[in-house]
Amino acid sequence: MSKLIVQKFGGSSVANANKIKNVASRVAGYKKNGYDVVVVVSAPGDTTDDLLKFAAKISSNPPEREMDMLLATGEQMSVALLAMALNEIGCKAISMTGWQVGIVSDKSHTKARIVNIKADKIRQELKKDKVVVVAGFQGMTPEQDITTLGRGGSDLTAVALAKTLNANECEIYTDVEGIYTTDPRIEPKAKKIDEITYDEMLEMASLGAQVMQARSIELAKKFDVPIHVRSSFSKTKGTMIVKEVRRMEDTVVTGVTLNKNEAKMTICDVPDEPGVAAKIFKELSIGGINIDMIVQNVSQKRKTDISFTINKSDQPKAMKLLKEVADDLSAGDVFEDDNIARISIVGVGMKSHHGVAALMFETLAKHGINIEMISTSDISISCIIDKDKSEEAVRALHDKFGLDKK
Amino acid sequence: MSKLIVQKFGGSSVANANKIKNVASRVAGYKKNGYDVVVVVSAPGDTTDDLLKFAAKISSNPPEREMDMLLATGEQMSVALLAMALNEIGCKAISMTGWQVGIVSDKSHTKARIVNIKADKIRQELKKDKVVVVAGFQGMTPEQDITTLGRGGSDLTAVALAKTLNANECEIYTDVEGIYTTDPRIEPKAKKIDEITYDEMLEMASLGAQVMQARSIELAKKFDVPIHVRSSFSKTKGTMIVKEVRRMEDTVVTGVTLNKNEAKMTICDVPDEPGVAAKIFKELSIGGINIDMIVQNVSQKRKTDISFTINKSDQPKAMKLLKEVADDLSAGDVFEDDNIARISIVGVGMKSHHGVAALMFETLAKHGINIEMISTSDISISCIIDKDKSEEAVRALHDKFGLDKK
Repeated sequence: MSKLIVQKFGGSSVANANKIKNVASRVAGYKKNGYDVVVVVSAPGDTTDDLLKFAAKISSNPPEREMDMLLATGEQMSVALLAMALNEIGCKAISMTGWQVGIVSDKSHTKARIVNIKADKIRQELKKDKVVVVAGFQGMTPEQDITTLGRGGSDLTAVALAKTLNANECEIYTDVEGIYTTDPRIEPKAKKIDEITYDEMLEMASLGAQVMQARSIELAKKFDVPIHVRSSFSKTKGTMIVKEVRRMEDTVVTGVTLNKNEAKMTICDVPDEPGVAAKIFKELSIGGINIDMIVQNVSQKRKTDISFTINKSDQPKAMKLLKEVADDLSAGDVFEDDNIARISIVGVGMKSHHGVAALMFETLAKHGINIEMISTSDISISCIIDKDKSEEAVRALHDKFGLDKK
Repeated sequence: MSKLIVQKFGGSSVANANKIKNVASRVAGYKKNGYDVVVVVSAPGDTTDDLLKFAAKISSNPPEREMDMLLATGEQMSVALLAMALNEIGCKAISMTGWQVGIVSDKSHTKARIVNIKADKIRQELKKDKVVVVAGFQGMTPEQDITTLGRGGSDLTAVALAKTLNANECEIYTDVEGIYTTDPRIEPKAKKIDEITYDEMLEMASLGAQVMQARSIELAKKFDVPIHVRSSFSKTKGTMIVKEVRRMEDTVVTGVTLNKNEAKMTICDVPDEPGVAAKIFKELSIGGINIDMIVQNVSQKRKTDISFTINKSDQPKAMKLLKEVADDLSAGDVFEDDNIARISIVGVGMKSHHGVAALMFETLAKHGINIEMISTSDISISCIIDKDKSEEAVRALHDKFGLDKK
């Protein structure tokens, strides 16, 4: 039996006719080498943005069902065009939308979750020796309404198909060579990571590395689907995302990430009573605002200050809500600060090494960088610092933890 | 029970956000006046052309299944956007693709024929008091492959839905006020026709009036679906296409049509034997070339000349095929002439009136216009004439048959 590979190409890889031909020739190469191939593609280039703009001209608050109906056209274009390109170079191929595959989702339009995948049609076409080109990012409810799977949805489609079809490999093609120890635009000495665990990648993804969305990594972790993240422009091996890495024992930190898209909100002189924090964050949650780090200072005179970080895009809404809550609670002033950045070090090695946090704080201190908030997990430590010094901090930590020496 | 109306809007009516809003406000008006409304829309503006161009850059001969997959996205965009626009102005609406409606077609991709329509989902949504916005031009095979219905396919969708849903009215919106006695750009005195029969409209459609495709009129005739062709930019009544018209007895000619897109091909000195014509036209048919008029001259010395007209776009292909056939048959030269036009007069009244043809020929003769070929049907007479004089001929016939005096 042939080995089955699932390959996912993002929007920039299918942005125009030449790029689509490029993808076709890569896919055909795998087919020629004896693989069964299922290709998942996103909408071409700016298509999704263009559709969103068109919709915005018509309605400020369009029904989400109709939004999904509109956006799903982007991937449908890609699959048809890529199937054409494959057939053109003599590689038999057939395209399928999400609903044709049988990707059944719940009804949460614009951010639907996959409930199950039938995939019989894919198996039938693979048996006919065809490459199957599947529209990423989309599904269908049991009532036959088209849904989309939210940001990074095409990665999710690829991982879910790899699991359903029991694929031997799952490749995610991007415009970078793989996952790096840090952003190479900030630290030119950044190195490509050969292997990274799901957990590390989850921290990297949620902390700002933009290669893959957390959801698809969670899914890959759940079903133990090994993922190969690599460049669509070269044949070089990229980064394997796996359950456990075969790494030298002394690697403590795997990567440094930076997120400049957060803002810090502070609500002062909050009564230090049970239920107060709950009230504040419940209001924000109802307002649809995601909270990242939370810090509550030690209470003085039965009053306390609460600080937390959110995505900058939620800042005006959060400010309005917080002022209302502050009034309700007879709390003090509300402050916002968007001149901050979140810097994090990530690594499974931290679990068994002491002093990693201390080394991080010391390194920042040596560079005169003040730490405003701290948050830790099993395999990461994050600090909120002055945005203006954040890139310097990335380079300092990258150097201190020896990430340029792999 | 509410009256049900099916309204079809073409691509130019949904070409941009403002035009879509315009359509929405018209549709909402009908809903407010107590109608149940099903709207059929085409792809926005140049979308279909843009998709065709994109595909052409990838493959000179793309699989037709993939072409349908690609083109069907255009109408899906339109329905989503129009449903958004309707909801935005407080008119509940839901969009549906061809497959969601249950428009089942045969497998002839790019020119599929509708086999049946389930339409239960439409009925359900109408009961919920929603306007249902249906993607025109598309269907699905029993194997769940997306098909398109060929040129004028959205009209076909509208007529088929009007029949299936037993609609009280079927409106086809265009950028003109209705069907005219002739092209107003050629004869400014042209009058809008209030009522026209299916048969007359079929002649007008196939003879060059570009408002509706013949297929949808044939379907409307078969199931006796009255059609109202009218402008999307005004509230004026347009033209009713019906089984029988209530017209003054003395109307003999209903319209004059002109088609400048034909070319005349002649193959000389063909052996005048049984099976020769069959061979010629079989070869052309295999080549996918549609023949319009055919004229065979009286035989002299066992040789004859055969002339026929085809669409200009088929000219190079036809020329090549004809030369091969001429060689095979040991016939003489092959000539092509694209400086011709087909002018026709159409009217059910002709059936019971004599001398109509004579009056037509006489009128052309008075203007010094030579007739190269003649063809007649029950309700039409067509002549091939010099293209340079064809517009003059239209005005002369329009005047002679009193079409400006309605």
